[in-house]
Amino acid sequence: MEKNLTPLVVVAAAITRANGSVLLHCRPEGGDHAGLWEFPGGKVELGEDARSALVREISEECGLALSAASLAPLSFAVGKAARKAGDGEREILLLLFTTSEFGGTPQSLEGGKWDWFSPCTAARLAMSPLDRELLDAMIARERMITGERGLPTQ
Amino acid sequence: MEKNLTPLVVVAAAITRANGSVLLHCRPEGGDHAGLWEFPGGKVELGEDARSALVREISEECGLALSAASLAPLSFAVGKAARKAGDGEREILLLLFTTSEFGGTPQSLEGGKWDWFSPCTAARLAMSPLDRELLDAMIARERMITGERGLPTQ
Repeated sequence: MEKNLTPLVVVAAAITRANGSVLLHCRPEGGDHAGLWEFPGGKVELGEDARSALVREISEECGLALSAASLAPLSFAVGKAARKAGDGEREILLLLFTTSEFGGTPQSLEGGKWDWFSPCTAARLAMSPLDRELLDAMIARERMITGERGLPTQ
Repeated sequence: MEKNLTPLVVVAAAITRANGSVLLHCRPEGGDHAGLWEFPGGKVELGEDARSALVREISEECGLALSAASLAPLSFAVGKAARKAGDGEREILLLLFTTSEFGGTPQSLEGGKWDWFSPCTAARLAMSPLDRELLDAMIARERMITGERGLPTQ
């Protein structure tokens, strides 16, 4: 029996619109991290590659169509925070890709809420710790791109 | 028997000095990717967390002492490029952490060469594809920090 010693790989998407806003998901009541906002995504299944897993998850969760080729690595976070019961003490690797190419409008297919936020507004939301770390990395990158001198992400 | 369908998680370090130079490793003759330069690091072993694995690998490869707490996520790359024979078609997740805190001087403990490069000089080296992708992400971040307007990493 597998002892769950391999890391749990979770992929997430920072889907952005032309105005810089990013799509976030609020976890539904009754589950892990209920009421917390997060970058949408989910677990990479056995045999699946990371980008395909993310395209599948986003389609299942909110009905948006992404192109795997457009997904660019943005940052990652590692931690013990189990997203689902049963994952116990496995380390989680949360990989954040970004894209501005998507088809459709977000629908609530699995019970959670969806909204678009500027990264700085998103910083005031309640988020799970790993998603917060990724948002901070995104904001730092944003500040660097726009020339507003923030500290580097580290 | 495990069919190697879980991704192979590899951790690597962008160890930087105050002048901005980064430590790179040239793979020894006779192995995979011989003669190519890379960020030092290696495979996360079963049951190991990512930061501890990187501290161990850097100590084994070049005798530098890193502090796990100082390791900040920089970027990641995913691909099929097997680093070692036997990894076959597993997807590789290459996680790049950065730190400027280290003890010791680099030694050649496993046969490879070591050198410090400015990121832009490093861009002229022969590198394996995933390491090249990470170097590009590092250079883009560097440019953004220094205010030289490069394109974002995506």
